[in-house]
Amino acid sequence: MKAFVAALTSLSLLGTAHAAPLEDMTMEDLQKVSPALARYLQTTLAEDLWKRPGFSPRDRSIVTVAAVIARNQGAEMARQFALALDNGVTPGELSEIITHLAFYSGWGNAMSAVLVAQELFAAKGVDAKTLPAASPELLPLDEAAEARRAARVEQDFGETAPGVVQYTGEVLFRELWQRPGLAPRDRSLVTVSALVASGQVAQIPYHLNRAMDNGLTRVQASEALTQLAFYAGWPNVFSALPVAKSVFESRAH
Amino acid sequence: MKAFVAALTSLSLLGTAHAAPLEDMTMEDLQKVSPALARYLQTTLAEDLWKRPGFSPRDRSIVTVAAVIARNQGAEMARQFALALDNGVTPGELSEIITHLAFYSGWGNAMSAVLVAQELFAAKGVDAKTLPAASPELLPLDEAAEARRAARVEQDFGETAPGVVQYTGEVLFRELWQRPGLAPRDRSLVTVSALVASGQVAQIPYHLNRAMDNGLTRVQASEALTQLAFYAGWPNVFSALPVAKSVFESRAH
Amino acid sequence: MKAFVAALTSLSLLGTAHAAPLEDMTMEDLQKVSPALARYLQTTLAEDLWKRPGFSPRDRSIVTVAAVIARNQGAEMARQFALALDNGVTPGELSEIITHLAFYSGWGNAMSAVLVAQELFAAKGVDAKTLPAASPELLPLDEAAEARRAARVEQDFGETAPGVVQYTGEVLFRELWQRPGLAPRDRSLVTVSALVASGQVAQIPYHLNRAMDNGLTRVQASEALTQLAFYAGWPNVFSALPVAKSVFESRAH
Repeated sequence: MKAFVAALTSLSLLGTAHAAPLEDMTMEDLQKVSPALARYLQTTLAEDLWKRPGFSPRDRSIVTVAAVIARNQGAEMARQFALALDNGVTPGELSEIITHLAFYSGWGNAMSAVLVAQELFAAKGVDAKTLPAASPELLPLDEAAEARRAARVEQDFGETAPGVVQYTGEVLFRELWQRPGLAPRDRSLVTVSALVASGQVAQIPYHLNRAMDNGLTRVQASEALTQLAFYAGWPNVFSALPVAKSVFESRAH
Repeated sequence: MKAFVAALTSLSLLGTAHAAPLEDMTMEDLQKVSPALARYLQTTLAEDLWKRPGFSPRDRSIVTVAAVIARNQGAEMARQFALALDNGVTPGELSEIITHLAFYSGWGNAMSAVLVAQELFAAKGVDAKTLPAASPELLPLDEAAEARRAARVEQDFGETAPGVVQYTGEVLFRELWQRPGLAPRDRSLVTVSALVASGQVAQIPYHLNRAMDNGLTRVQASEALTQLAFYAGWPNVFSALPVAKSVFESRAH
Repeated sequence: MKAFVAALTSLSLLGTAHAAPLEDMTMEDLQKVSPALARYLQTTLAEDLWKRPGFSPRDRSIVTVAAVIARNQGAEMARQFALALDNGVTPGELSEIITHLAFYSGWGNAMSAVLVAQELFAAKGVDAKTLPAASPELLPLDEAAEARRAARVEQDFGETAPGVVQYTGEVLFRELWQRPGLAPRDRSLVTVSALVASGQVAQIPYHLNRAMDNGLTRVQASEALTQLAFYAGWPNVFSALPVAKSVFESRAH
């Protein structure tokens, strides 16, 4: 438990000296500003939230890593990336999460994450040869489903922004989503978490449905929202709840 | 006035050398990139906005501190935290604002704020023993009102996300909001300011009504929006205006 | 091409040593975390997106600079500011973009951008005397159009937030927008890009119409959205598409 709390506060797991803004923070530092937050970290986060049943520590790390990349939070990235490896996310999966969020959270967010991950990978001795290749053999595509998706987007926005529509098909749905380095269910969980964490409510229905098609259960989706309440803030989750409720209900029939 | 302008630009009040990204900035630095912004800082901000009647410098600091924490702006946090202490926000209140926003703006935002506040508190010789305790005696709760709130949220989202609903009651409304280190009116002002500053329009009606129930006047709410136009940007405030208008009108009858 | 890729990854163009968080990043660094992102940077961004017809590299830089300021991304700001100068944005125009976004993205975002631009201007030997003056002679104002805008906002929000309404007229529309250091079409492009990049969908219709009144063509607006898909993330652009479509259609009749 003590090691777990340390992972949530400090960067000592990395075993390296960090330059700002990835400053180290200990429970003592937290006590000097907010004794209450030190207590919440110990009891509400480490001993309660992260141990709730129905959603593994690995799943919680995937959600939290996606949230801090989507919100571009350097110091918290360093803590959460290290914790994610401890919780069973592989370096290859972390690499793939960053690659995925370059498109769903923006290029600059991914570049910040690359800097943090590079330092972590160096400290952990991760060999770049073990990471997902630049152009791997892709997972098989459901051509009929992709044709339906592409036709709908073309009809909606083909005249408005042909460039966006083209890249959406070629780069995102025919390539990025089919990369084998991250299971489709996990890739969907990353996407939904990033949407909730950055207040992108309008895009949640499509991706939450896709996530559940990819195997995310209703309990897991519910626990992802619980995790995000703490790491993306209550308002983002309360704005997502009506949408999630509507998706859950539409699938119950 | 000169000292006030310095507080808005530099970190010299802290009397410490700062590592990046909390770099010092002087009016001369600003002149080297935008002579116009140097003028706006001097005339529109320091000599006008911050001196408008109907909303004290302390209130303006509470709004601005909430905005920069909600937007996770490290360098601006350092300037605004120091200015807030000058404007009469106590270290204990600043501690409590950070604690509150860990839940309303997300854990990572609070951790960035802790790093900045820790440095400021060290420079000012703030003793951690004078900060709000981890588990203080709580303000008395209006059990009937809380029961109504809890029942409504349980009915709306109890099936969708039981974990969120549980923590909302136990941690937020039965504990965080009842902590005595920040007056309920100020706590509400922090919450509304953070919502506007991060574009959380859907959550504004509930919290603006609660703020006015807690004693925030219509003039004060209006001036908070004026302050936020500058520190959270015009678009966030223009998106909040129709909602604020509707809340004001609904309470006038 | 190699130089262009270097501009997108590294800060070597600045010829200076950078303190964190403006750390240098090379293609090799990127390879160590995500070989896929290194490939996308080379092929999809540098050799494809930035070379699409219908929207010049200068226009793409204006859009991207606005996006990274709106999203407050320090390291990406440093790369994109340097690239913008290479692509024909003048230091005076960059100064004016930062000044403009102090109001449309918030004061703290502009202060971060000032720190980055100051270092770039020093490295490039930019003389502050060549930057737009603090109080230049303003472009002529269409008094009738401004009177209509002011009357509409006064009617909508004059009672709700008189301070916001007052500054909107005096500081923004009677002054900031009439500053001659940035062409109105470019100023509008900056504004629309910042709105899309920070998810401010509700404010897009007014400013996209204004942008097209100021000379931005439909193809250019469409390409701006394509550029933003990569630099602000797909969800922000997909949330903006229905609004852009509606504006385009309303102007076709």
